[in-house]
Amino acid sequence: MSTIAVIGLGQMGLPMAGHLIEAGHRVCGCDVQEAPMQALQAAGGIACTSVQEAVAAAEVVLTMLPSGREVAQVLRQVIWPMKMDKTDQQPVLYIDSSTIDVATSRSLAAEAATHGWPMIDAPVSGGISGAQAGTLTFMVGGEADHVARARPILMAMGKRLFHAGGAGAGQAAKMCNNMLLGILMVGTCEALHLGEALGLEPATLAAIMKESSADNWALRVHPPLPGLSETAPANQGYQGGFVTRLMFKDLNLAFAAALESECATPLGSLARNLYALHLQHGAGALDFSSIYALLAPGSSAAEP
Amino acid sequence: MSTIAVIGLGQMGLPMAGHLIEAGHRVCGCDVQEAPMQALQAAGGIACTSVQEAVAAAEVVLTMLPSGREVAQVLRQVIWPMKMDKTDQQPVLYIDSSTIDVATSRSLAAEAATHGWPMIDAPVSGGISGAQAGTLTFMVGGEADHVARARPILMAMGKRLFHAGGAGAGQAAKMCNNMLLGILMVGTCEALHLGEALGLEPATLAAIMKESSADNWALRVHPPLPGLSETAPANQGYQGGFVTRLMFKDLNLAFAAALESECATPLGSLARNLYALHLQHGAGALDFSSIYALLAPGSSAAEP
Amino acid sequence: MSTIAVIGLGQMGLPMAGHLIEAGHRVCGCDVQEAPMQALQAAGGIACTSVQEAVAAAEVVLTMLPSGREVAQVLRQVIWPMKMDKTDQQPVLYIDSSTIDVATSRSLAAEAATHGWPMIDAPVSGGISGAQAGTLTFMVGGEADHVARARPILMAMGKRLFHAGGAGAGQAAKMCNNMLLGILMVGTCEALHLGEALGLEPATLAAIMKESSADNWALRVHPPLPGLSETAPANQGYQGGFVTRLMFKDLNLAFAAALESECATPLGSLARNLYALHLQHGAGALDFSSIYALLAPGSSAAEP
Amino acid sequence: MSTIAVIGLGQMGLPMAGHLIEAGHRVCGCDVQEAPMQALQAAGGIACTSVQEAVAAAEVVLTMLPSGREVAQVLRQVIWPMKMDKTDQQPVLYIDSSTIDVATSRSLAAEAATHGWPMIDAPVSGGISGAQAGTLTFMVGGEADHVARARPILMAMGKRLFHAGGAGAGQAAKMCNNMLLGILMVGTCEALHLGEALGLEPATLAAIMKESSADNWALRVHPPLPGLSETAPANQGYQGGFVTRLMFKDLNLAFAAALESECATPLGSLARNLYALHLQHGAGALDFSSIYALLAPGSSAAEP
Repeated sequence: MSTIAVIGLGQMGLPMAGHLIEAGHRVCGCDVQEAPMQALQAAGGIACTSVQEAVAAAEVVLTMLPSGREVAQVLRQVIWPMKMDKTDQQPVLYIDSSTIDVATSRSLAAEAATHGWPMIDAPVSGGISGAQAGTLTFMVGGEADHVARARPILMAMGKRLFHAGGAGAGQAAKMCNNMLLGILMVGTCEALHLGEALGLEPATLAAIMKESSADNWALRVHPPLPGLSETAPANQGYQGGFVTRLMFKDLNLAFAAALESECATPLGSLARNLYALHLQHGAGALDFSSIYALLAPGSSAAEP
Repeated sequence: MSTIAVIGLGQMGLPMAGHLIEAGHRVCGCDVQEAPMQALQAAGGIACTSVQEAVAAAEVVLTMLPSGREVAQVLRQVIWPMKMDKTDQQPVLYIDSSTIDVATSRSLAAEAATHGWPMIDAPVSGGISGAQAGTLTFMVGGEADHVARARPILMAMGKRLFHAGGAGAGQAAKMCNNMLLGILMVGTCEALHLGEALGLEPATLAAIMKESSADNWALRVHPPLPGLSETAPANQGYQGGFVTRLMFKDLNLAFAAALESECATPLGSLARNLYALHLQHGAGALDFSSIYALLAPGSSAAEP
Repeated sequence: MSTIAVIGLGQMGLPMAGHLIEAGHRVCGCDVQEAPMQALQAAGGIACTSVQEAVAAAEVVLTMLPSGREVAQVLRQVIWPMKMDKTDQQPVLYIDSSTIDVATSRSLAAEAATHGWPMIDAPVSGGISGAQAGTLTFMVGGEADHVARARPILMAMGKRLFHAGGAGAGQAAKMCNNMLLGILMVGTCEALHLGEALGLEPATLAAIMKESSADNWALRVHPPLPGLSETAPANQGYQGGFVTRLMFKDLNLAFAAALESECATPLGSLARNLYALHLQHGAGALDFSSIYALLAPGSSAAEP
Repeated sequence: MSTIAVIGLGQMGLPMAGHLIEAGHRVCGCDVQEAPMQALQAAGGIACTSVQEAVAAAEVVLTMLPSGREVAQVLRQVIWPMKMDKTDQQPVLYIDSSTIDVATSRSLAAEAATHGWPMIDAPVSGGISGAQAGTLTFMVGGEADHVARARPILMAMGKRLFHAGGAGAGQAAKMCNNMLLGILMVGTCEALHLGEALGLEPATLAAIMKESSADNWALRVHPPLPGLSETAPANQGYQGGFVTRLMFKDLNLAFAAALESECATPLGSLARNLYALHLQHGAGALDFSSIYALLAPGSSAAEP
């Protein structure tokens, strides 16, 4: 078992740390908030009042922070200056499970590489409920042997691991996936809305499309109208699920990548702007399938 | 077995008529072209030189024409004036399997209803290969007893039948499905293209997304790049499949429906305009997945 | 002076009829509403209880109706069957000043031409206030000699006349103009909104752009924020002006034309969909510049 | 007269330096290319082989570089470490006339302010021809007294100066203006293209729209089709003018700003993506009005 520093004990980081403890690891956690620190201790972890303290004895450092800015800051200004080389054993393994922009992810990995420190990016999908249940999916970028070393640790917190490629590839894969998911959701809403306007029963149309060439994850697993799937947030007034603000964040990461690479992503950009409208009309904390109401403000779905 | 008039013996109508003949029906066909008339006769059907002749003894009339204009013309100007009431037996059943706009489909069904003539709309998906193999899917609108009467006839030509609702619902369902399919395809192209620009292997990214929340029919069954699915037209230089011109037609039908119903369909409209660009740059006869090349003109996929 | 039938005495038709009366013409008007009929009589016109009565003695027939459906109905079902040929004088001149789709306009002109009846399309811009003040602009399609004959009549109601080309060209020109206007307005809102978010004073940014390459009519004459132009509806809580519902109508006509002609109009289509959202969120009766609030719901402009 | 360091002697910087020399200033220039250094010397300037040398005696430092990356690099790594405080006279004035992102511009101004060094951002419009003719427009951000000090220097190179607000406001104003310009151009192309498809003469439609509510700078001054304005690049096969690559750069800056500020800019984003397509199809070096050919590939305008 390893000594693992977990930096960032938010709604994702805290339950992930819990699964590491359950798996027998020694977990030293750190967060700017007091409440999760107490929760970590209650779960059998060690709450550290500084990042330095948390990482001092760590064999693995796991960061789970809101954006590239925070990850870069904690690595560049706090951890890396500590120069935690370990001559008689393997070096500290850095795992960044935050969802951040590809460019920052690659810069950080390159900096780590200059010191010979292994680093992988391993953003997750599955959300808060997946973090709590230990069923996350990891999309991982980095060298194969580093990924191999990280695998048992990651699998203590999740069910699936995709090795997408070299440094930053995990971020890139998640971002591409989520940009497409945003498009699938808005497109599914448009089709159901247009069908409704033409007199089709949403349940009938959804059933047909699921069996036809319009089949997609948003329609099948996470439909934007109540009554189409038992587990969909649409049945609970769009509470829980994957909230609009996080989808907007991911669509912004996708656009940042499109800017960097000069790619044309017309539907992805439009989806980003529609989510910006939806966010600004007050839906930030609702599941992202609630964008149905942006298209169909008079619908029953619009008033959860 | 029935006497069935088939009006329109194009690339879809001719093989469909063939399956009806195989199923034991007496098929009287009619087309403006000479070649398919000869092919019909060779297959055991009766080639009629006029629509009047074809429908004269028909118990069922099946239309398979390019657009609402032709269907309306042949029904209103030729067939309905014949007043083919049959007092001592059930009335002629009209099946329109053309893909046409919902508004025209509903107008025609309403006119038929004023005469007491049963009519259903039953557009198909599955394309030319589905018509040849007899594996079409029918999306059907109309009254339940008319649909029940049509079912064995349709199932002679296809494998699946969805009853979407009342008159026009078959057209509406197909149109909604195909609008969403158009969006799925462009979105999938954007995600793969962005991933490629970021250094991801398309096969790796596609494999990850198929197992994740970006999963959709276009990615899984009909991917826009070679090497991702054995049966995809991308492997054959985008030959065959569902051609750009037909996808553009369906996206236009979707927009016509959005106009009529005052619905907002931002992604559907943008997909329609991107397909307009793709068409105008010469891709009308290529499979619709070739739109990858519009986004990525320098890619290997761009030069089939 | 002429005897002129005015069919349609709505908010546009009634004041237009008034200017014709002032100019000395004998005006026979007809409307489905009672109030404008009385207003016409009070203004010195002749209120007729049927279209037949209104046009019976007319030398000129002016239609001012909500859409192509109504214009086609009144011409095809009522007026043209009357066969108002006049052998010893010039034939009746048909002027359609309604804003309708190009396809219907051309069909009607073609039907008129088969009878030798002169017909022009002459949609207007300038709105209700322009109709009241007699300062409308006419965009006219038709043969030059018919336009010449219509000119003095039109100039009694307006200040400017553009001859755009043959039949339907007036409708086409107005529709292209208004599609572009819709784009200019949304684009101007986006630029001002982005500038505001970056800390620029809207008045300063507007002043700079008016003197630079972003200058356009929406910014200069009809800006979407209060305080930028004295006469803009934004100063009066977006009351009056050119209402969202009418802009949406024109953007729909543009899309119908794009469908017919298979043109790509990506920005025009997106503007249409954004106006659909704005309409559905309750802004149909507000000036179309109020779409600023769709983009910036938290802004002061959002709560008139 | 002042000693002015000009860092960056490209197609813009070199002629701008020339006007400063003509106005009597002592100009010390520096560039990574040899040719413009010789040209500067020939024009009476002093070619310096390093940035340090160029700025050593400068009272004013003018940067004219391709992007924020270069400006940040030369300021942070070379110039500011020189600590060019001048105790017995006024401090060095920094003028950045590069077109860069607002965020970088504000960061640099904030850093300068911590040292008490005056800095303004002063991006230009007018292009290469404006730089050569000395007719540039400057959009300026910074404190009023710094702008006042810079004014005579800037006016030696241009004709107009807008003070848009505090630090970064010049960049923000230019970026908003150019995002809107990009929208105006694509919208104007769509309207002219749709009109052409409907049979309107482009010259006629353009003349009508210029006098109507669709009037805008792109239509009036820089129309995308030949024959509409004598000075438009469309008349010279889209050579010269404001090239697609630079418009794409500015639309990317606008999107970067929208990302930072979480603004919705749906038309601006779509215009950015259309220019990405146009660029990738090989039009980077053509005037940005050539995007007409993306929409209308079969048109005469498409084959310059």
